[in-house]
Amino acid sequence: MSNDWRAMWAELGIDLEKHDQFLAALPELYEKTFINQFNRPQAMQYFDFVISEVHGLRVKELVDHKLKGGKVVASFCVFVPEELILAVDAVSIGLCAGAQFPVATGEKVLPRSICPLIKASIGFKLDSICPYFQVADFVIGETTCDGKKKAWEILNDFIPTYVMELPQRKEKEDYDLWEAEVNRLMQKLETETGKAVDFESLSQAVAKVNNRRKVLRRLYDLRKADPVPISGKDALLITQLAFFDDPERFSAKVSELCDELEERVKEGMGVVPQGTPRILITGSPMPIPNWKIHDIIESCGGVVVCEETCTGTRYFEQLTEEGQTISEQLKQIAMRAMKINCACFTPNNERINDILRLVEEYKIDGVIYYNLQFCHPYSIEYYKIERALQAAEIPVLKIESDYSEEDLPILQNRIQAFLEMVGQ
Amino acid sequence: MSNDWRAMWAELGIDLEKHDQFLAALPELYEKTFINQFNRPQAMQYFDFVISEVHGLRVKELVDHKLKGGKVVASFCVFVPEELILAVDAVSIGLCAGAQFPVATGEKVLPRSICPLIKASIGFKLDSICPYFQVADFVIGETTCDGKKKAWEILNDFIPTYVMELPQRKEKEDYDLWEAEVNRLMQKLETETGKAVDFESLSQAVAKVNNRRKVLRRLYDLRKADPVPISGKDALLITQLAFFDDPERFSAKVSELCDELEERVKEGMGVVPQGTPRILITGSPMPIPNWKIHDIIESCGGVVVCEETCTGTRYFEQLTEEGQTISEQLKQIAMRAMKINCACFTPNNERINDILRLVEEYKIDGVIYYNLQFCHPYSIEYYKIERALQAAEIPVLKIESDYSEEDLPILQNRIQAFLEMVGQ
Ligand code: SF4
Ligand code: SF4
Ligand code: SF4
Ligand code: SF4
Repeated sequence: MSNDWRAMWAELGIDLEKHDQFLAALPELYEKTFINQFNRPQAMQYFDFVISEVHGLRVKELVDHKLKGGKVVASFCVFVPEELILAVDAVSIGLCAGAQFPVATGEKVLPRSICPLIKASIGFKLDSICPYFQVADFVIGETTCDGKKKAWEILNDFIPTYVMELPQRKEKEDYDLWEAEVNRLMQKLETETGKAVDFESLSQAVAKVNNRRKVLRRLYDLRKADPVPISGKDALLITQLAFFDDPERFSAKVSELCDELEERVKEGMGVVPQGTPRILITGSPMPIPNWKIHDIIESCGGVVVCEETCTGTRYFEQLTEEGQTISEQLKQIAMRAMKINCACFTPNNERINDILRLVEEYKIDGVIYYNLQFCHPYSIEYYKIERALQAAEIPVLKIESDYSEEDLPILQNRIQAFLEMVGQ
Repeated sequence: MSNDWRAMWAELGIDLEKHDQFLAALPELYEKTFINQFNRPQAMQYFDFVISEVHGLRVKELVDHKLKGGKVVASFCVFVPEELILAVDAVSIGLCAGAQFPVATGEKVLPRSICPLIKASIGFKLDSICPYFQVADFVIGETTCDGKKKAWEILNDFIPTYVMELPQRKEKEDYDLWEAEVNRLMQKLETETGKAVDFESLSQAVAKVNNRRKVLRRLYDLRKADPVPISGKDALLITQLAFFDDPERFSAKVSELCDELEERVKEGMGVVPQGTPRILITGSPMPIPNWKIHDIIESCGGVVVCEETCTGTRYFEQLTEEGQTISEQLKQIAMRAMKINCACFTPNNERINDILRLVEEYKIDGVIYYNLQFCHPYSIEYYKIERALQAAEIPVLKIESDYSEEDLPILQNRIQAFLEMVGQ
């Protein structure tokens, strides 16, 4: 990243010194993790570029958008309907944080024993080192897990935080509640932007977001090939960047990548030899720059071919159906979200079916259940998933981890042993 | 407790050997904690007796109730409307668990990093050592915190577990959702018991439960006196037993105790000297036999005069208004619960007001914020409460603890230091 951005950062109220510290380690981490992967697709160059400019060029785009009177809205969960944000010409940024750096600051206002994603997210704001938080007009939170639900109350002291109430079951009343929440958000967005949502703007937004979902579906479909034409790390990176990049440009670039991968599949070319243990990751989300588990797996002779997470299939598998009126379209937007099988729902047996289906579709040899430390919903839900996988005779390993590097040696040992067992 | 109960326990499917192990330590703990307190009220004898027969005589009453065709329903949260359970002639038992013994078993199916109350509750069922769990026909769970919400899915494998959806905010839609949930529960109870709720049975149940709330209010009012006429430990024990004992008998016995305490207040007689630091406990519930913090405080020269917890004021402060029809009465039952300021709601600023009010009413010298380990809602909410108390210049100490005895020395030191600071 060039140094031209310091003035912009200063203007955004970034703590430049801390920001330098934060950014210092990233290029090396990125280099080590991503560059020099065997037979890496050419088209990954675009995503390397996006990462290199993630605090620069992309932020500049948002600043320019705001200069033209546009709004920027940050959110932290795939339930928040991006379509509505786009329909009022605002930019939607998914701000879940995957970095260890701001965790210590998060712990100044939050208990240590909550999930690092929440601590890092809040820490980023308090440290004033995330340009997206600085540029955002407001945050849309949700009542998914206890940690986030209660953290919004604190975050609201630092940036206006609007909260959507996500229901906890999937009964008639819950669909109604969520549809009402989607309508309430539309009003909020209209008020904030001074723009009225009309049928056309909403339809266009639905098409845009659906299109991004479709290209990600295509990308994931290509990962079903054996040998797999792209590494798990690269695929994860792409999904992570979907939360930041311009949706149309992003979709076009992923399509280009898919064209290249399609060629590979035709030629039987992969990034690892056929027979490499194929791993499904399932569990808590992995926001940028949390590449820890993928990196270990792929350094230990396995390959990740699918993620049943919110930085994976839960993000894009469900499309929004087209409605014929605004209110019908809003209903469809609400219904789409309710098909996401997050552990915050009770019961959530559909997730078991999802996992068993993905195991089939992606010819999975072993499942790694990834649990962010102190994430209760996923951690407790493991009980049922483990039993279902055992009944289907699919090996599963539960990994509970945070963003630090302290547990790397232990994780390496455990994952290595699991891959050896699975590869036999 | 006499040994006559072994046959009954065996019949209930109790694991007798494990049950013996569990019960072995309790009399000594009880003796040490409760008997020989200075100037203990005479009327505490009844509650000593209830405790001594908590696995005996009271269970026998429930067994007899079932022999006569009655049902027994277990619940774990003060939001579950006891009135409805009583209205179908069922017995309601509040089963939150405060013992360390079953925690290890709970950890076999639940993650270690969730609150001990949940682990102990599930552990009791899996260990088959809780006669109430054995006698209960089914459980009514709720979606209050992530831990409980997801634990019900597991518990349901061992005992039928019906789940009420508690909303997460206090807006119009949330009141509607909860009212619908109260109505749904009524139907469930009618189906399970084959009894139809009529206006009279419901009114009687409301009166019975309100009456228990009123006597507890009276008891707590008497704790406002300085010197305080009853120890915090004894008052806590009474609230804990409210979840188990027959409501009418319990109310009568608490009234008798209050008569005695009233005399004491008139005479200026207390269980500690005037000037003893008066402590408010606020935070997570303390079910039987969790007397740990009260015991430390009262051994270190302080006295607990109020608990803003669900084994305290949140249990009884709000009465159910009388309605003129069944549906109006159900609405009032729903509305009462929504006035409880549990940290599972967002926002929950009313709890700040409650605490500040109680500090005034009970002439509090210091607040101890009690957080069960890994209880996220209360732990995160501390941030706001601490700030409010600091602004009001009221000393506050946050204690995070589980049911083990490992942290006793540390807690003693911290609480001792706090009491000294507060007493100056
Ligand atoms: S895991 Fe659940 S709460 Fe977290 S982003 Fe995904 S849907 Fe939202
Ligand atoms: S990972 Fe789990 S605890 Fe963390 S924000 Fe997501 S659902 Fe909540
Ligand atoms: S603390 Fe909240 S969830 Fe727990 S018993 Fe009380 S009201 Fe229910
Ligand atoms: S103490 Fe906290 S974590 Fe435990 S059951 Fe109650 S609300 Fe849930």
